[in-house]
Amino acid sequence: MQTAVVTFTLAELAEQHGLTLRGDPHTVISGVCALLPGQAGKLSFCGESRLRSQLSLTQAAAVILAAREADQYDGNALIAAEPALAFAKIAQGFDRSKEFTAGIDSRAAVAASAVLGEGCGIGPGAVIEADAVIGAGSYIGPNCVVRRGARIGARSRLEANVYIGPDCELGARALVLPGAVVGGRGFGLVPSASGWIEMPQLGRVIVGDDVEIGAQTSIDRGALDDTVIEDGVKLDNQIQIAHNCRIGAHTAIAACVGIAGSTRIGSRCMIGGATVIAGHITIADNVMLLGMAMVTKSIAVAGVYGSGLPAMPARDWRKQVARVRRLDRVDERLQSIEETLRLTPQTGEGNGEQDDF
Amino acid sequence: MQTAVVTFTLAELAEQHGLTLRGDPHTVISGVCALLPGQAGKLSFCGESRLRSQLSLTQAAAVILAAREADQYDGNALIAAEPALAFAKIAQGFDRSKEFTAGIDSRAAVAASAVLGEGCGIGPGAVIEADAVIGAGSYIGPNCVVRRGARIGARSRLEANVYIGPDCELGARALVLPGAVVGGRGFGLVPSASGWIEMPQLGRVIVGDDVEIGAQTSIDRGALDDTVIEDGVKLDNQIQIAHNCRIGAHTAIAACVGIAGSTRIGSRCMIGGATVIAGHITIADNVMLLGMAMVTKSIAVAGVYGSGLPAMPARDWRKQVARVRRLDRVDERLQSIEETLRLTPQTGEGNGEQDDF
Amino acid sequence: MQTAVVTFTLAELAEQHGLTLRGDPHTVISGVCALLPGQAGKLSFCGESRLRSQLSLTQAAAVILAAREADQYDGNALIAAEPALAFAKIAQGFDRSKEFTAGIDSRAAVAASAVLGEGCGIGPGAVIEADAVIGAGSYIGPNCVVRRGARIGARSRLEANVYIGPDCELGARALVLPGAVVGGRGFGLVPSASGWIEMPQLGRVIVGDDVEIGAQTSIDRGALDDTVIEDGVKLDNQIQIAHNCRIGAHTAIAACVGIAGSTRIGSRCMIGGATVIAGHITIADNVMLLGMAMVTKSIAVAGVYGSGLPAMPARDWRKQVARVRRLDRVDERLQSIEETLRLTPQTGEGNGEQDDF
Repeated sequence: MQTAVVTFTLAELAEQHGLTLRGDPHTVISGVCALLPGQAGKLSFCGESRLRSQLSLTQAAAVILAAREADQYDGNALIAAEPALAFAKIAQGFDRSKEFTAGIDSRAAVAASAVLGEGCGIGPGAVIEADAVIGAGSYIGPNCVVRRGARIGARSRLEANVYIGPDCELGARALVLPGAVVGGRGFGLVPSASGWIEMPQLGRVIVGDDVEIGAQTSIDRGALDDTVIEDGVKLDNQIQIAHNCRIGAHTAIAACVGIAGSTRIGSRCMIGGATVIAGHITIADNVMLLGMAMVTKSIAVAGVYGSGLPAMPARDWRKQVARVRRLDRVDERLQSIEETLRLTPQTGEGNGEQDDF
Repeated sequence: MQTAVVTFTLAELAEQHGLTLRGDPHTVISGVCALLPGQAGKLSFCGESRLRSQLSLTQAAAVILAAREADQYDGNALIAAEPALAFAKIAQGFDRSKEFTAGIDSRAAVAASAVLGEGCGIGPGAVIEADAVIGAGSYIGPNCVVRRGARIGARSRLEANVYIGPDCELGARALVLPGAVVGGRGFGLVPSASGWIEMPQLGRVIVGDDVEIGAQTSIDRGALDDTVIEDGVKLDNQIQIAHNCRIGAHTAIAACVGIAGSTRIGSRCMIGGATVIAGHITIADNVMLLGMAMVTKSIAVAGVYGSGLPAMPARDWRKQVARVRRLDRVDERLQSIEETLRLTPQTGEGNGEQDDF
Repeated sequence: MQTAVVTFTLAELAEQHGLTLRGDPHTVISGVCALLPGQAGKLSFCGESRLRSQLSLTQAAAVILAAREADQYDGNALIAAEPALAFAKIAQGFDRSKEFTAGIDSRAAVAASAVLGEGCGIGPGAVIEADAVIGAGSYIGPNCVVRRGARIGARSRLEANVYIGPDCELGARALVLPGAVVGGRGFGLVPSASGWIEMPQLGRVIVGDDVEIGAQTSIDRGALDDTVIEDGVKLDNQIQIAHNCRIGAHTAIAACVGIAGSTRIGSRCMIGGATVIAGHITIADNVMLLGMAMVTKSIAVAGVYGSGLPAMPARDWRKQVARVRRLDRVDERLQSIEETLRLTPQTGEGNGEQDDF
């Protein structure tokens, strides 16, 4: 879609976003840019004090910054309590990426019983099955599949090649990136003499409002109950959420995380990339998991958790592995020395058996 | 598709599945439900003794349970040797999710030379290329791509947005979830003075009967020989299986597992989520790998294997990493003490060099 | 597409590829095969000395081998300085997998303002939006989506179900496997009192020439600047590259790798499968990372790096974890012994605090 360039004056932006203007109010802003090198006619921001040395070098037309940085910069500025937040909101005004033309493309397949709200845009190749409901102002991009009975809230966006399973529900303002699968079959199997028997997965996925679901992320439908993603959850790419999980409100999960079945994650958690979380456990509210953590047990107390041994030169790594494998000998040697010295032995091998992870 | 609600009496279910009925044989069952809270008119099950305390609380119309639990519950019951298995089979009778209307959607692209068995359903946007063969009663969902010469067995289901590469073969009753890629190019490269040169990947993927392939799982075609997935293998979501692997019959692999090229996994293995398996190794039959394991060498003996350091508070984790890095000093200190005490030193640093992983 | 079988004589192959022929120059070669068992009429290769014992067993019509292996085999042969490289180039001549029929399928949706070079093939269900540019001889497979303003270089191939975001650019001879997503929204969020606020992602993805992008791999668009993939980079399946990363020329990355935002990887690196790389760090040229490594800090020196504890029987693993957790006690016990012996304590607990990863 061809769209005219949007511009604002610095004064308009200050007023719209409740910021303090310093400098020329007539400065015309036609977009946003990084602080370095910065671009003429565009607005940048200084979100962290450690970037303040870049302020003198930027070619941006104006900068959003905190009051504490204001004396470091004598150009046009918008003073904000939270510069990154102010910048994000202003940048959204220049973001054309969610615009679409309302209407149903002739190559889409929309069932007669599907209900489309006002102003929806349905792209070529999109499939909307019987009894599905699409909220007003939503965009269902090319080659997306919305199965029968699924419900998408108002002003949502399914970018392209997205799959929404039967009877699953997404709230308002959902943003679902290409290739995401919401409501695929959970991995439910029962052993039998003739091999694995499928346990039907009859639950749904229920997604709250303002949820982002990244590219190629998959969220399985529940077995009998539902898998639930609460309001404001933000999921990056290539995340796997198994059946019957519940992710608490405003939790953000970075890419490549895997969460096994029936696990409950609290609200306002932050989960680092590639972390793996076992099934049937509970993570409290406000837990931060560092990247690549291996979470095998419930976490009851808010705080920061991590695991793993960071990389090192391979030769050193091989020695490290060998040393860890020889820790039983360290125990033995310590005991032998302690016995020689008639010291009281402190910790013996046997305790290892009692670990309950 | 609008379908009438299916119901059975408890007596009918008992007879169809060879179970012992206790209670009112005329009880009408219109679906299945979880044990708690349970739903009127629906059937649940008690699969494990640890759930027996829930029996008195369920609102289900009837429960499948083992004989040993029968005295814990005085409601309507079906007594089964394996309650979960009986429940899975009965639940399949209530599962409408695999129903489809036979016929070729007008928006599908089916080559003239493709052969479709009786009763197939081909969804909108599906592409079936020249010489492909689709077995009777199979469903090829919206926007799936079946390349030239590929063969899909009878009563299979490709849910949506699935890719099957040229000349690849799937057996009967395959279930392939959205976004799966079977028969993409293997990652074969040869270094040259001008950069990487592509090694053509001329093998196929051959998949046996009764195989499930999860959402966004990818199985690469072989370089010269084929990649093989044997009968009854169950693959969860986001699994990566590289070229020339062979996965033995009835092996189940949880989500996010990666298996590098030319590795052979035995039959009836169970592989936990996010485990990573090196290339060119062999895993015996009946091996269970715990989640997030790092498998760098062949495993010749059936059993349970695992690795990794579980997460802990970040402050403790940092200390743990530091201590592991100082293990060389532990060795030195032990040797120094042993020398002082004229004890025979037991294990020296040098041994680490000999580890062959 | 039905294509006649291609054949070459051994003499033709020797001449075309500058190899030394030994044996019958009239031998007809109709394809390539593995060394064992080998196939009549086909050409194989012996790429490594450890395979030389297989030479006497092969049924291949001819074998490419190094001069040092030539006396191990008395059949028809092509002598090459780099047998695998010669084989790859010859095998490409037998590879029909990239052939397509030029033209736009009637089920594709190509915008009037899109520019298609000569000889392009656009598959059914493909969507090419306004102002997109597709280079000559490129193939855009079924159900691919090329957003407005995106540019694809000449002789590129988007296999199927691929997504290219708005204004993103791919160079010449790109190969993009099914389900890949190039230019999805980066995971940019700013906290606010009412939850996470989206930071618009206004950068692009810029991909050089001769780049391969694997199945279900995702490369996020930059926040303000671009994400850059340089010439000759080879990406396997299910890789995640976050916003603002730069991957140096001719770097090869195996499957399931995750790279967090703003990280720079050097040229000619080789990154093993399932390795995870933190954000905002720099990896030098010619670094090799072993599989499943956890990279939390910049690597300034070329070389081989790794991390992780390989799998072992679960019983041993549990003991290993327990021993690592007891390393604080080892420190205490060593100190106690050293004090008893009046040895100078060497490394204390406190040092752990200073680690800066």
